Amino acid sequence: MRNPVLIELTRGALVESLHAGAIAVVRADGEVVASVGDMASPIFPRSAIKLLQALPFLESGAVDRFGFGAAQIALACGSHAGARPHVTGVTAMLARTALSAAALACGAHEPTDAATARQMVRVGASPSPLHHNCSGKHAAMLATAVHLAEPTEGYWRPEHPVQQRIRQALEDMTGCTLGPDALGIDGCSVPNWAMPLAGLARAFARLATGEGLAPERADTCRRVREACWAHPDLVAGQGHLVTLIMQHLPGQVLVKSGAEGVYCGAFADQGLGFALKIDDGAKRASEAAVVQLISCLHPAAQHLGPDPRLSNWRGLPVGEMRAGEALTSMLQRLR
Amino acid sequence: MRNPVLIELTRGALVESLHAGAIAVVRADGEVVASVGDMASPIFPRSAIKLLQALPFLESGAVDRFGFGAAQIALACGSHAGARPHVTGVTAMLARTALSAAALACGAHEPTDAATARQMVRVGASPSPLHHNCSGKHAAMLATAVHLAEPTEGYWRPEHPVQQRIRQALEDMTGCTLGPDALGIDGCSVPNWAMPLAGLARAFARLATGEGLAPERADTCRRVREACWAHPDLVAGQGHLVTLIMQHLPGQVLVKSGAEGVYCGAFADQGLGFALKIDDGAKRASEAAVVQLISCLHPAAQHLGPDPRLSNWRGLPVGEMRAGEALTSMLQRLR
Repeated sequence: MRNPVLIELTRGALVESLHAGAIAVVRADGEVVASVGDMASPIFPRSAIKLLQALPFLESGAVDRFGFGAAQIALACGSHAGARPHVTGVTAMLARTALSAAALACGAHEPTDAATARQMVRVGASPSPLHHNCSGKHAAMLATAVHLAEPTEGYWRPEHPVQQRIRQALEDMTGCTLGPDALGIDGCSVPNWAMPLAGLARAFARLATGEGLAPERADTCRRVREACWAHPDLVAGQGHLVTLIMQHLPGQVLVKSGAEGVYCGAFADQGLGFALKIDDGAKRASEAAVVQLISCLHPAAQHLGPDPRLSNWRGLPVGEMRAGEALTSMLQRLR
Repeated sequence: MRNPVLIELTRGALVESLHAGAIAVVRADGEVVASVGDMASPIFPRSAIKLLQALPFLESGAVDRFGFGAAQIALACGSHAGARPHVTGVTAMLARTALSAAALACGAHEPTDAATARQMVRVGASPSPLHHNCSGKHAAMLATAVHLAEPTEGYWRPEHPVQQRIRQALEDMTGCTLGPDALGIDGCSVPNWAMPLAGLARAFARLATGEGLAPERADTCRRVREACWAHPDLVAGQGHLVTLIMQHLPGQVLVKSGAEGVYCGAFADQGLGFALKIDDGAKRASEAAVVQLISCLHPAAQHLGPDPRLSNWRGLPVGEMRAGEALTSMLQRLR
């Protein structure tokens, strides 16, 4: 069974391109409130689970030991844009654990913050691992290893205790078993386990509400979501969709993007977690779909997403980006 | 009926993302030699038909009138990278018709040639319409209007004789009727008519062989394909897939990309035209699919495409990009 079309792009009177995918909206007890497509087969959540990967960073005691607060937790949860606040923030995290950028195993890529990227080209600067969108998560992983007197060398390998604790937290939160068959290597070299959308959505419902969790885990979840709402600019970057949504709906909507068309998040006040994946991995479609989903319950979010009016290089209107029939029906059931 | 999966991207042991689409391989007489997916419904070919859009540029007499040769025909057929040879070439074409960049209606975007784009950022230069990948096609349209004493103002509008001649040439070559229902506005503001892949593939079989065409049209087609093979660097740019393929297989394979996952082309020596469209518009998938298709008959082309081994920001192998089952079976039938 193929997933249905969630997003269509028109040109003139015809649909030019389309994006299939699946969405699950689930309560903390696992009750499925709405869904479209396959929510049972495993998908790689990529960076959309950084808020869950951050749990052992707090629960190990590393956050308190190094005097970290909401800003550092937000950086640990973020796919940041590589702008100055992100780079200086991660540098400071590393310094507080007596490490430097040399310890980061994430690799390097150009900042996604366009102004920073252009400025670096202007001055002939090369991106460092600090600019990698995952450097905050890696600094948190390193801090956890330092705090627990574990080797920092190889902290990114699946068998390292840092990664094993994260795997355990993911299993606890999603209710899924994560065996070697589900293991993939992420863009930043740490393990990424494939999980069904239903499990991811359930984990985010728990993260957003604390329901069904032990008191310590529930408190950790509260700190994680409050950090993201306090510093949405550190979870992504200025003008990035994740940042815009949490800036506009703090305390109400939690949201995090992942590569290859993934979003996870929660409607905290409704006690609903959600997870979505676009089959082909297109960012334009995952952004459009998550904005359709969020604005279904928070109509003001509609204007935060990509412009549904498609125009060309001279600004002439050429078509529109819109929800497909399957997504429209799912949203009607959710409303 | 949805199109089948043509390209899959794996991570670990699982398929992470997939791209559906359709391909038609057709002879000049319309005989379908191989196909996968829907080759009968209209798709927007976008820039993949620039070789066909160039026909009236030659047949009007504009090419000869202004002393243009293979280089200018290749620029007219190209989606160029905005590097120096492209910009100076288009500037010279405009100058020979007593026009300037101000006449171009294509809009502006950054060069796709990475070195040129970075150099422009370094010196603080903004892209002009000359950098637009379609500026050669627009210069050819303007030259045709000037030669025929038609207004250059509005040369991009569907009702302008320049565009009407192109529509007629497209109908002649594809055997399709292009009515107002099929009309879309392209990224560069000229009309783009939706056509079935079977018609596009047939047009490219005719273009590559001259079969079934009046002598004058057959001669024009010969000049167009010879120009592309003589100057593949002007049809795209250094390192671009279209350029690489025609540099390696001149006289054998004609190929042109279009936005939103389209390729058209021909195996000239086999008398076969082809056309493909990835449903979601992804370039990575259209490139992988066209290389799979071309290397089916020309195995040496295999290494020209995107690396099928997927690696992450630190260079670690994470998965592979491969043909889906439907594409593999189609290629077996073609072999």
